[in-house]
Amino acid sequence: MRTSSAPSSRTRVRRMPKRGRYDAGTVHAILDAGYVCHVGYVIEGQPYVTPTAHWRHGSRVYWHGSSASRMLRALQGEGVRCCLTVTHLDGLVLARSAFHHSMNYRAVMALGTARTVFDRDEKELALRGFVERIAPGRWTALRPVTAQELRATTVLWMELNEASAKIRTGPPVDDALDYALPIWAGVIPVEQRLGLPVPDERIVGDPPPPVPCVGNGL
Amino acid sequence: MRTSSAPSSRTRVRRMPKRGRYDAGTVHAILDAGYVCHVGYVIEGQPYVTPTAHWRHGSRVYWHGSSASRMLRALQGEGVRCCLTVTHLDGLVLARSAFHHSMNYRAVMALGTARTVFDRDEKELALRGFVERIAPGRWTALRPVTAQELRATTVLWMELNEASAKIRTGPPVDDALDYALPIWAGVIPVEQRLGLPVPDERIVGDPPPPVPCVGNGL
Repeated sequence: MRTSSAPSSRTRVRRMPKRGRYDAGTVHAILDAGYVCHVGYVIEGQPYVTPTAHWRHGSRVYWHGSSASRMLRALQGEGVRCCLTVTHLDGLVLARSAFHHSMNYRAVMALGTARTVFDRDEKELALRGFVERIAPGRWTALRPVTAQELRATTVLWMELNEASAKIRTGPPVDDALDYALPIWAGVIPVEQRLGLPVPDERIVGDPPPPVPCVGNGL
Repeated sequence: MRTSSAPSSRTRVRRMPKRGRYDAGTVHAILDAGYVCHVGYVIEGQPYVTPTAHWRHGSRVYWHGSSASRMLRALQGEGVRCCLTVTHLDGLVLARSAFHHSMNYRAVMALGTARTVFDRDEKELALRGFVERIAPGRWTALRPVTAQELRATTVLWMELNEASAKIRTGPPVDDALDYALPIWAGVIPVEQRLGLPVPDERIVGDPPPPVPCVGNGL
């Protein structure tokens, strides 16, 4: 399966085309390694970028929030265009000249139309995906969702049919002559790590702590 | 100094207003703790969200890139509206019900108009800010920038006069009755860490490694 066998001109990586990737495996892995995406939308000509939790099921990426959220309300119209971007910063790339300083990163930009989940069962299934993405097996351990909670939650999704990944890895690339200069160059790695779970003070009984889904891997 | 003594209705935090902060100190600290922002802009009605490095000088936030970049070209028109968002994920918040699952985070959303730096000296000064933000003192150790490099680089900035921060910290907040249930609840901390610098294989001489500016602190 490929997310975009012929990427659109809008998602084609123009700058540094060798960094562009369009296969679903790469796109999905980058989405799955992140907990937070940035959703772009437009209200009265003004672009907004809102961070929110996301998760993926097959070729759909989901996000959700309060039904009162400005972002979610703006995206619930018919055929509202949006952009969902997930970025992992993997390193600061220090070159011998300011010009060639860069970052190592993995990013996905997905363009599409936000769709609302209306069906109650489908919404519950989507929320299950959100919880299970954080800690597999957790859904069945929770107090079940209520009809009121489902009404108060808006779940949106977007088809991943116009998505591109952009990846940079490796050392700095300097101008040929600059390699002779005695200037430190290299990469400062950046890593996102999960710490040990911190239990709430009001836990009763002896429930097992969650085993979080490890993120940030590709 | 306050970034927005009376935040606009567009930047007012509506959902969870107690999480909203508008003072410059908070806004600047969140911007300064991050290396990568997400810039939102609109081309022919389609919103785009592009990750890019940012840095701050006073009440201005800067970003830059190749003069051929689609994002930078789109933002160079007269009075083009954009949105710049910086997000730090600090923890996964696991509650006793799916509904109250949340994230601990610090985020800034800044709305404004992108401005281009045209002056050569001002552009060089801005790039210095970018390099020094990564590793203080590094600018003077580098091979100096050339006129051609400055021409090939576009530097944009935005005034931070319509910005808001949103912060969540602490344990889950559950429904009163749910605290009696023997369900694990708490926070899985998430941290962004810098690793030890990895020197490029082609370093000559014995230049000292950089001391990176530690990010992610508030």
